[in-house]
Amino acid sequence: MSDSTTSNTKGEMPYTEQRYFSSYDHFGIHEEMLKDSVRTLAYRNAIFRNKHLFEGKTVLDVGCGTGILSMFASQAGAKLVVSVDMSNIIGMAEKIVRLNGFGEDKIVLIQGKMEEITLPVEKVDIIISEWMGYFLLYESMLDTVLYARDRYLVDGGLVLPDKATMFVAGIEDGEYKEEKIGFWRDVYGFDYSPFQEVVMQEPLVDTVNREAVCTSIFQIAEFDMTTVTVKDLAFASDFKLKATRADQVHALVVWFDIGFEKNLEEPVHFSTGPFSAYTHWKQSVFYLKDTITTNYGEFIYGSISSKPNKENPRDLDIQIVYDFRPANEVERHASHKQRYLMN
Amino acid sequence: MSDSTTSNTKGEMPYTEQRYFSSYDHFGIHEEMLKDSVRTLAYRNAIFRNKHLFEGKTVLDVGCGTGILSMFASQAGAKLVVSVDMSNIIGMAEKIVRLNGFGEDKIVLIQGKMEEITLPVEKVDIIISEWMGYFLLYESMLDTVLYARDRYLVDGGLVLPDKATMFVAGIEDGEYKEEKIGFWRDVYGFDYSPFQEVVMQEPLVDTVNREAVCTSIFQIAEFDMTTVTVKDLAFASDFKLKATRADQVHALVVWFDIGFEKNLEEPVHFSTGPFSAYTHWKQSVFYLKDTITTNYGEFIYGSISSKPNKENPRDLDIQIVYDFRPANEVERHASHKQRYLMN
Repeated sequence: MSDSTTSNTKGEMPYTEQRYFSSYDHFGIHEEMLKDSVRTLAYRNAIFRNKHLFEGKTVLDVGCGTGILSMFASQAGAKLVVSVDMSNIIGMAEKIVRLNGFGEDKIVLIQGKMEEITLPVEKVDIIISEWMGYFLLYESMLDTVLYARDRYLVDGGLVLPDKATMFVAGIEDGEYKEEKIGFWRDVYGFDYSPFQEVVMQEPLVDTVNREAVCTSIFQIAEFDMTTVTVKDLAFASDFKLKATRADQVHALVVWFDIGFEKNLEEPVHFSTGPFSAYTHWKQSVFYLKDTITTNYGEFIYGSISSKPNKENPRDLDIQIVYDFRPANEVERHASHKQRYLMN
Repeated sequence: MSDSTTSNTKGEMPYTEQRYFSSYDHFGIHEEMLKDSVRTLAYRNAIFRNKHLFEGKTVLDVGCGTGILSMFASQAGAKLVVSVDMSNIIGMAEKIVRLNGFGEDKIVLIQGKMEEITLPVEKVDIIISEWMGYFLLYESMLDTVLYARDRYLVDGGLVLPDKATMFVAGIEDGEYKEEKIGFWRDVYGFDYSPFQEVVMQEPLVDTVNREAVCTSIFQIAEFDMTTVTVKDLAFASDFKLKATRADQVHALVVWFDIGFEKNLEEPVHFSTGPFSAYTHWKQSVFYLKDTITTNYGEFIYGSISSKPNKENPRDLDIQIVYDFRPANEVERHASHKQRYLMN
């Protein structure tokens, strides 16, 4: 599916950009996303249950992939859907869209970077996009959606989804932490401990059992897609977690919920958290250097911040600071600070 | 672990090369390889059970990764181990090797392409390397081992491992084939059949249950590392598979076995096939367009060929031709031919 034009375009991109766009060429990721029915059905429900919003409207699908959301929007009555993707998957999307009877008068597909292409319309009424990455913001495709919003969306237009919230909680995860971190202490008789630091500073994307969550849940971020700016995506939040049982906290888990809300007669939500059905986003686990032993009702105080990495803006620098104050102690322990890189 | 020197080096590489070398920077792949104890213990056993071969010898470790094989070789009595890897993992390898007490007089680590670097020795007595990829040959690191052999190995020196054999068999895999291929017929009500072709032409790397194998096994390739040339790695082989039961054959499965044999008092072998313990190489599954219904004792005749892809030599073009001759028919069916790309 590659041609010389595409290759040339890639040749001018920084390496990290090439890797980002190229990985989406491979069909495997699209299979995973399509088979994630929590994700795909949430979009379909939001669109189909609010057809009145799409009737006769111009829709922009940012990062359209195989074109599934574009076809939903067209079926819902959109006058025209403009579907944009940088990746070579656009060739496959074109085949699929036409095969399913959507002509060029209904769905127009464009390969290119949102910031560089020319749309066949001046403005759009609705922007739909499935831009979410691990830890919500990893791979920063949201930047592109916000660019499209500011450049193409009519006043009062819709961005779907329009709400994203992020949460943190503490988890007991001793066994798996030992497998992931402890493993490096003795590798076939050798001391591989330099790996521990590397492993510790990389959030682990994995599913967390709900039973592992042993603190309250704290909301650390909320983004309104109609107003949020790229700058806001570098966020910092304090948090306070109450131990819901006597246990050991080995890690913090972060996840996000997504909402299709504004102007929708039937709002739609889904969660990627440990208390909901599996999604391909799983959760992000941040191992703590020190295990925190809690009694019921005790608090872990802390803060979490996330910002794009300077060298590779698609990577995230995440910092977690935490303090544990046992119920029977007056003085706070010294703060613990850990840096993570999501890459 | 990246520095500006490395970035510059990468800047001059073709994109596909960059992706290949960069993916190995990430520690995850090293964790997977180290935790593959079938793999790692086979190397350790081959080295430790034949210490007399290593005593006082100069060893070259091609693609040393975290340095585990280099440390095994040094422990076995090697005078000097030269450990080469292109990837930034070499920085981690250096830390680990030194931490475990191997000084620069014992293990020398060099970052670079085998074909471009200068070794601190003229010749080596032994080459060790874990170069095997999916389908044995995917990612073609063997080319580099053969270059090193021809350039640096003393006459009569050892290459470990020295033997690789590849096998094919037929499998019943209806349920999973339906999940992988059939899925695309109806994706949330849309016809995604163009994906079927793409999925069909990509070998699936996955574990096959031994119960799924419903034909005899046929050896399709054998490589002797002391004599094989890069040219030999583009191979073609006829095969003949006898149905071991009445069943349906949905796919062919290919795997490889590895041997440490020549001059070894205690040869060591391991298999990556469906009848052996799990390895991270799993097996390669090639779905057939037509399901073959067999009775016990009937034969599937065919041929399989593999050669590097012209555009990206690390990818493999694999072609399978097959013919099914039911026991009660005299005429052969028309030959079926399928092309696959491993990328």
